Parts: sequence; structure tokens; C-alpha cells
Amino acid sequence: MFHNKFMKEAISYVDINSSDAPIGAIIVDDENKIISRARNNTEHDPSGHAEVLAIRQAVDTLGVKKLYNCSIYITLEPCPMCATLISYTRLKNLYYGARDLKFGAVESNVKIFESNLSLFKPNIYSGILENECLELLKNHFANKRL
Amino acid sequence: MFHNKFMKEAISYVDINSSDAPIGAIIVDDENKIISRARNNTEHDPSGHAEVLAIRQAVDTLGVKKLYNCSIYITLEPCPMCATLISYTRLKNLYYGARDLKFGAVESNVKIFESNLSLFKPNIYSGILENECLELLKNHFANKRL
Repeated sequence: MFHNKFMKEAISYVDINSSDAPIGAIIVDDENKIISRARNNTEHDPSGHAEVLAIRQAVDTLGVKKLYNCSIYITLEPCPMCATLISYTRLKNLYYGARDLKFGAVESNVKIFESNLSLFKPNIYSGILENECLELLKNHFANKRL
Repeated sequence: MFHNKFMKEAISYVDINSSDAPIGAIIVDDENKIISRARNNTEHDPSGHAEVLAIRQAVDTLGVKKLYNCSIYITLEPCPMCATLISYTRLKNLYYGARDLKFGAVESNVKIFESNLSLFKPNIYSGILENECLELLKNHFANKRL
């Protein structure tokens, strides 16, 4: 199943030894070719969430401003910053793994795509390899408490 | 009055000849020193709103991750992407000029800082040189329709 395959790619791109939250993102075109891979990297850029970095890279690689025929796979539900950027760039499909009860902006907290903002809404698929995605986060925060 | 002075700086940094929306942002420290200046520039980066660029530049210039003692002046009410980044970087004060009835995420549409997201909320001051800020936008969109 393609969804699981690409979510595995996003998971495998996470750097579990980084101090950044273990979140990965992959952008794929409509021929199932991977266009970009990114992981959270906020060390020198506070906007460096995996989704933002993957989108910047995809736009740069394809030389376009909108990603109409592309899909994004993210291990965690996007925050309002990332959800809004996904909307601006017209990503067709949004797949994510775990819910983010604190900052999630799709279904968990602010529902950015349900708001009356004039925002484009992608097709949304959640819970893809949810347990594996959650496991990454649990291990990260458990290690932080050691 | 400092607020007007810095908003004028933000306005004057806008490039009215650009195809990007005429929005400017300035970040100032608690000694009223300007740390960064930016204008919308989404040509090669869809996240290149003035606020995002000003924040990235300020973080880089100061070599810090949070902008605790800084204020941001923006000619337009920030969108959810920018409001969330303002929260992440702990900017103490947010000053803006015109409201954005379509994408505004402070008072006009999604109220990001009033949500139950676990987000830091800056002090918020709106309507600073509102007419001058609005004028920029009106001229831009009037010219687009020619």
C-alpha cells in the first residue's frame, strides 16, 4: 500500500539522535516519485518544521510555486503554521500519522481547514502508521526525561 | 511615538514594484534597536511572508532561538502561519497596521491566540497607521486589475 510505504519513508528520515522533535515529512508527485524529504530542524530556523522544509525543497526542486498534484506525508498532525503553508501551496493530499493533541491544527485543536478562512483544503487522511509515528515521539520525550 | 516610527519603517521597507503583496515587518529589541527588516518575498519560498523572513533574520542576527524581549511591527494582521511562528519565537509585543479580513489570524478570522492551543500569546496592538498600511494594499491590488 503506497500510503504505508511513503509514511515509512517519512519515519525513516527522522533523526532519532537529534534534539529536535522526531518528525519527518515526504512529498510525492502524482507518479509516486519522491520529490523531497525533510525532518524537523529548528536549530537555526524556528520555522524549520519538517513540513515547511519539505515544501520549500519541493518548490525549489520542481521550480513551481504551487504543488497541485503532490501529496505530503507527515509523521505528526501539522500545527497551524504548517497547515496554513500546506494550504497556500495547494498540496492535493495530506497524509499524517499521529495526532498532536497540543498543537494539531487539523482535527485535534484549531481546525484550520474547517475555519472560514479562505483557505484551500487538501484531501486529508490521518492515522497512517499511527503507532510507529507515536513510538518515535514517546522514545524522544522519554529520553529527554532521563 | 515609537509605534508610529517603527510602523513607518515597516511601511517604507515594502517594495511597491514587486509582484508580491506589499507587506513589511520590522523586529525591534527592548532598547528600540532595529534587529531585522523584511518584506513579503514568496518568489522562491512560499513561506516567505514578511514576518517569517524578519523572524528568521532576527534569530540569525542575535544567535538565539527565542525573541523574548523583542517586538514585531507588521503592516498587516498576520495569517495563521505567521501568528503561530510569532508564538513559537515568544515575541513579546505584536504591533500591526491593517486588519486582514480574509486570512487574519488575530482578530479577523481564526483567532489563533484565543484558541486552546498551548501557544504563547504576545501583547497585541492593532490599528497602528492603519490607513497608510491599507493604502499600500489598495494600490497594489488596483494596479493588478489594470
